[in-house]
Amino acid sequence: MIEPEEFLNFIKNRRSIRNFQEESISEKEIGMILEAGRWAPSASNRQPWEFIVIKNKEILKAISKLARYGKFIEQAPVAIAVVGKKKVSSKWFLQDISLVSMNMILMAWSLKIGTCWIGNLNREKAKEILKVSKDDFLLTVLPFGYIKGEIPQPTNRKGLDKIKREIV
Amino acid sequence: MIEPEEFLNFIKNRRSIRNFQEESISEKEIGMILEAGRWAPSASNRQPWEFIVIKNKEILKAISKLARYGKFIEQAPVAIAVVGKKKVSSKWFLQDISLVSMNMILMAWSLKIGTCWIGNLNREKAKEILKVSKDDFLLTVLPFGYIKGEIPQPTNRKGLDKIKREIV
Repeated sequence: MIEPEEFLNFIKNRRSIRNFQEESISEKEIGMILEAGRWAPSASNRQPWEFIVIKNKEILKAISKLARYGKFIEQAPVAIAVVGKKKVSSKWFLQDISLVSMNMILMAWSLKIGTCWIGNLNREKAKEILKVSKDDFLLTVLPFGYIKGEIPQPTNRKGLDKIKREIV
Repeated sequence: MIEPEEFLNFIKNRRSIRNFQEESISEKEIGMILEAGRWAPSASNRQPWEFIVIKNKEILKAISKLARYGKFIEQAPVAIAVVGKKKVSSKWFLQDISLVSMNMILMAWSLKIGTCWIGNLNREKAKEILKVSKDDFLLTVLPFGYIKGEIPQPTNRKGLDKIKREIV
């Protein structure tokens, strides 16, 4: 088991990373990230998802051009697109594939591999490039790479007094 | 840091728990679960969320009646409702609050506290009971408690060959 205080620190210390080393991450590491995603829970265990591992430099570059705040995708040695299969779970696919993505992000962080959620992209064009079916939903393209440079400072969080209510 | 193999096992061994001991979890543990949620990433760091800690037995019972597969909510000593503030981030609130929920679920698991995603509930009635604004979205009510009885066997997962593609 993982010690709770250590795990909370792990979650609090995680950062979004936008600078990657050129060196690729290993197949084993990619496999562990996929595996962490695969073991996410889903509504009625339908697993309405597809993972696309992108290593092709041209494709990474093409995707980066579709992402307003994700130009750095092209620097990453690999990216994983997380796709929701609407027909497999029409009501719950979006939350299910979000849970998958959080698991992948945390798994990467434990491997000292950086990533950053890229959701603001031209989805329709990205789906064409990645040959994703029109019926499916492209949630995010997560670039993965060893961290280059300093780890960023934490971003602010709203205090619990602002976001928590109790019903006692 | 957390050792990657250990973390992957942690993710793979996590189970949805539907049987809880009567004894309440501690305020410190509730605080750690909230804190793990609070530190989830969000689009443009907008944090479009509210957490409602429910300890009132009558309210837990009323919510359990609205959840087709969540009757066991009433057995839990505490539940946390995860709410999305649509007006704070209209495009991204749903994925953001899903990431929050995954962090909470994993934090609980490290504390040996069980939970189970309850999403299939009469949202409008539950929002009334919990005094959630009409503009907001009630994603899930997560019951939390110490695990009672055996930890369930793992549910199946589709093989990677079924859900993974590569673009090399």
